[in-house]
Amino acid sequence: MRFLSYEIDGTGGLAVDTGTGEFRGLLASSDGFPGTLDDIVRSGDFAGAAKRLQGGSPVDPATAKYRPPFVRASKILCVGLNYSDHAAESSMQAPDFPTVFARFSSGLVAHGASLVKPNVSDKFDYEGEMVAVIGKPGREIAEADALDHIAGYSIFNDGSIRDYQLRTPQWTVGKNFDGTGGFGPVFVTADELPEGGSGLRIETRLNGEVMQSASTSDLIFDVRKLVSLLSIAMTLEAGDIIVTGTPSGVGAARKPPVFMKPGDVCEVEVERIGTLRNTVVSQGR
Amino acid sequence: MRFLSYEIDGTGGLAVDTGTGEFRGLLASSDGFPGTLDDIVRSGDFAGAAKRLQGGSPVDPATAKYRPPFVRASKILCVGLNYSDHAAESSMQAPDFPTVFARFSSGLVAHGASLVKPNVSDKFDYEGEMVAVIGKPGREIAEADALDHIAGYSIFNDGSIRDYQLRTPQWTVGKNFDGTGGFGPVFVTADELPEGGSGLRIETRLNGEVMQSASTSDLIFDVRKLVSLLSIAMTLEAGDIIVTGTPSGVGAARKPPVFMKPGDVCEVEVERIGTLRNTVVSQGR
Repeated sequence: MRFLSYEIDGTGGLAVDTGTGEFRGLLASSDGFPGTLDDIVRSGDFAGAAKRLQGGSPVDPATAKYRPPFVRASKILCVGLNYSDHAAESSMQAPDFPTVFARFSSGLVAHGASLVKPNVSDKFDYEGEMVAVIGKPGREIAEADALDHIAGYSIFNDGSIRDYQLRTPQWTVGKNFDGTGGFGPVFVTADELPEGGSGLRIETRLNGEVMQSASTSDLIFDVRKLVSLLSIAMTLEAGDIIVTGTPSGVGAARKPPVFMKPGDVCEVEVERIGTLRNTVVSQGR
Repeated sequence: MRFLSYEIDGTGGLAVDTGTGEFRGLLASSDGFPGTLDDIVRSGDFAGAAKRLQGGSPVDPATAKYRPPFVRASKILCVGLNYSDHAAESSMQAPDFPTVFARFSSGLVAHGASLVKPNVSDKFDYEGEMVAVIGKPGREIAEADALDHIAGYSIFNDGSIRDYQLRTPQWTVGKNFDGTGGFGPVFVTADELPEGGSGLRIETRLNGEVMQSASTSDLIFDVRKLVSLLSIAMTLEAGDIIVTGTPSGVGAARKPPVFMKPGDVCEVEVERIGTLRNTVVSQGR
């Protein structure tokens, strides 16, 4: 199932692909609205939600105003240095355990919304990534069981303000500027995709030019390993989001460096999930 | 005003110090319950809440079952290396901008609850810290206005699994083991304390022995500066939590190192706020 979170005149809605590429959905104000994806991932009843939504109104994915698929995650766990070629270009050693930093929901923007280049920096970089969303909670999850805990997948542009990211030993500030985390366009349940979301082509394009191109099979720690290793430390909860890492080709590592500027269009495509497209604007005073 | 979050038989409640050290409170199931602190900090009406709670039942702070003051923060921003003597003992340079990592609410425990030493590590360290809680939202907040955005203060024990913290370049995993973040005992509104919570004695004791002793005036980035600098990047929201950093004396920096083990009692006292007390237990299999 493919779900699309949207809004009309400020009211949230949720639509589902009816199987033919046509989406039908309901607004939160409608009878039968099954809840947001944040609600549904906690109940686990995606099939029931899809059934209700199929009775809704047509939603045109080309013109809808999107919302990020999830906006109330308890944890957004981003994995750094998880493609060996990217670790190398960042002059960082590929680690023997996932390198994790956090993003907060406050910095997210939907497909089609603007990514915001802040006034204080011109070093706004893209990072295309596949997202895995936790469905079933758990702690100390064995690798063999890990994929049972994944509800589905989406796409992230982990927009990074490089000078702030590297100004201190921890990356958190540079990874959490308002309006810098693209998330979407849609959420695809795990049954629609290869096991662990592996073997999918991932590509980032800036103004149409291919900047990153890899396969999700190149992840150092794949989704199975990430779930198992992260759950050594913490209980993973329904709706928690794992942003799995970016391949080589980020702007900061290019010679000369390439950064996003107002007017640029950045697209992150993951095969069989979709294309997350955002235009860059300036923060304004 | 001093607020105490508690529970009776699984039902949450909130109590207020009536001014004489006696607490009175209401359960969520009672008429007139003003909401949790997470709710009240968003409305801003602490005085109205206190008035209602004063009509409630006596709550004995010595025997109550505490809850963490806040459990739904959108962001828990922890500041590392924010006392120069601790930066030095960690062999880290004192940074020119706050070093920030995130904690998630899922790892928090209340005053009186158990801190959990995980099975995978014996390097469970304490870090006593003062907490500042955002009341009024804002972005790009001037230092001169910063304290208008603070609702009040509390205490944190930023329990850290040192080997996991330092296993990769980012500290997130080692800072987010389940049951490792002590938070409480109470929340004290800003009007009860010196400006910016400065000049308060902060002390961490392990089994009664003083391990950390400093003044909140020793912060490299004080609360005013933290609010102003963090809001360069991100909108601070009501209920966001800033864990301001720990002074020298952590266990990992001692020769020989000292780590917490099951049965230990760790106390963090901040003058005029209170004493956060937790006993360490083993995770169990």
